[in-house]
Amino acid sequence: MIIEKPIRIVASGKYLPQKISSAEIEKKYDIEKGWIEKFSGVLNRHQVTFETNGFMGARAIESALEKAEMTLNQIDMIIAAGATFDYPLPSQSSVIKSELKDGLTTNIATIDVDTTCLSFVTGFEIASKLLDGQQYKNIIVVSSEIASKGLNTKKPETLTLFGDAAVAFILTYDTQNTSTFIKGGIKTYSEGLNNTIIKGGGNKYFFRDYPYNEDLHSFAMDGIKLLKMAKTEIPSFIKWFFDNTNISLFDITHIFPHQASKAGLTIFKNMYPLKPNQMKENISEYGNCIAASIPLLLHDEIEKGDIKRGDLCFLLGTSAGFSIGGALFRY
Amino acid sequence: MIIEKPIRIVASGKYLPQKISSAEIEKKYDIEKGWIEKFSGVLNRHQVTFETNGFMGARAIESALEKAEMTLNQIDMIIAAGATFDYPLPSQSSVIKSELKDGLTTNIATIDVDTTCLSFVTGFEIASKLLDGQQYKNIIVVSSEIASKGLNTKKPETLTLFGDAAVAFILTYDTQNTSTFIKGGIKTYSEGLNNTIIKGGGNKYFFRDYPYNEDLHSFAMDGIKLLKMAKTEIPSFIKWFFDNTNISLFDITHIFPHQASKAGLTIFKNMYPLKPNQMKENISEYGNCIAASIPLLLHDEIEKGDIKRGDLCFLLGTSAGFSIGGALFRY
Repeated sequence: MIIEKPIRIVASGKYLPQKISSAEIEKKYDIEKGWIEKFSGVLNRHQVTFETNGFMGARAIESALEKAEMTLNQIDMIIAAGATFDYPLPSQSSVIKSELKDGLTTNIATIDVDTTCLSFVTGFEIASKLLDGQQYKNIIVVSSEIASKGLNTKKPETLTLFGDAAVAFILTYDTQNTSTFIKGGIKTYSEGLNNTIIKGGGNKYFFRDYPYNEDLHSFAMDGIKLLKMAKTEIPSFIKWFFDNTNISLFDITHIFPHQASKAGLTIFKNMYPLKPNQMKENISEYGNCIAASIPLLLHDEIEKGDIKRGDLCFLLGTSAGFSIGGALFRY
Repeated sequence: MIIEKPIRIVASGKYLPQKISSAEIEKKYDIEKGWIEKFSGVLNRHQVTFETNGFMGARAIESALEKAEMTLNQIDMIIAAGATFDYPLPSQSSVIKSELKDGLTTNIATIDVDTTCLSFVTGFEIASKLLDGQQYKNIIVVSSEIASKGLNTKKPETLTLFGDAAVAFILTYDTQNTSTFIKGGIKTYSEGLNNTIIKGGGNKYFFRDYPYNEDLHSFAMDGIKLLKMAKTEIPSFIKWFFDNTNISLFDITHIFPHQASKAGLTIFKNMYPLKPNQMKENISEYGNCIAASIPLLLHDEIEKGDIKRGDLCFLLGTSAGFSIGGALFRY
């Protein structure tokens, strides 16, 4: 039996760096005109020029706070939920906090959570479990991702797929509303560990011993193996996730899938007979923004006014690892 | 009012790479004989030869499982709690799981939590909040840290202070015992952001644009500023932490502080009139093992038989960020 917890999304904010169209990327890297849209379905994405993860995350948080008419000292914790970072040390959450208005004078908690593309989903679950209306009244989950620096210019499949973005959500413990957190969960299928990897830059291939080399230090993906794993494992994950919830995938009003790739989204659509507009998409406008994809989709749909309070929402995605994860809540 | 949660440490395991004495390090780096012990109080530490974070973490987990007479499929989640990693992507927890006996065939959850030196403390708090006896019956928190690769050979203060280690704890939801989790918490004082930092290797100083340079890519620490901040902020942190708990620092049987430095430990000892043996120490034998220091201390004291079930225990530390954090529980 699942006990729904009174957790409510108060507000959200985003920061997007400069937009770059697929036509511009095709020109820059000498890729055949129209190939990107055909191959990945991406028309535009955003990429940093001067921005850092810290800068983008701080601006997204400030935007969310402004919408909520809240100040930083009303927040108890910032969870930075993402895979990319400004420095190997300290934690990205502490870097983001240091770049916030009032960040230097407000001594709240900062922690990092990383499940790569599922980091926001995991951060959302952890925030919902921590929030108690006492020690933790309000928690911010922020995903600030710079994918563009780690792309291999010789691999058009990934070079053209990814975008940069930051999105922040303020979550609160609130027993006065119909909003609830129902369930979160993730499963890791380790046979897929090497299907998405950046090999160089950690302790295994330490930079002192392995100088920069685009192949070693860029994101490498075996798209075909990934799609095969997703196809095999998603049905049993979905079955496991909804067991004991008294809710089925078909009861859900809004599904926000990770924008992994057009092919990945198509697999999911072909797997389940979903209603029109039940599953949201933004890959054509933003590409795959790692952990920022799901919250960006959720943020934009909320801004459009399409998500009503109490609506059943489901975040779902795959990530490097290989993992599948989800989070179920009433908005 | 704090409601204690029925969480129990089932077992723990550790992995240590090769031991290196301070005399050997003094010889290797042409440091005056006896300087290290005098300056940092460290006599020995362990440093990897062939090991990776994944390898050490997996061995520590296997040792804990063996002691608990449990198998991996009884575990619901592995939390990798640490600052160092084998690859920039995927998450360290998924790397550790992939190197476990049964890791490839057991599809449990893996997540990373990073608050640098406080990561185990944060992982312990998060595990305690997730554990519910239903979806999450047993969670492993593992800290596997390789500090030795990121040390600057020109800075004896840090070169001689750090060690490598991995420690894993199995936590369970158990209403049949006196063991409980009472409270966890962290505060980040962002004015100290630059006092402990590895600048190079992330998006800010991306390796493509900034080739390896020992000063840029090694751990840099301003020890004097750190000690000053600890001195100023620890008293108000301790006051905040114990407020509403009906427990004071003096009620606690065992305090496990992060082994940041001999000077840091001395500051704390001079701040509070602690009982003999109330505060544990292992810096002379292991050095500062980043997030693995606190669980290593806890593991060894449990192994010695000095910690009895029901004993009030307090984990306390400082970390890069600059943060102070703690976790209070009955063993």
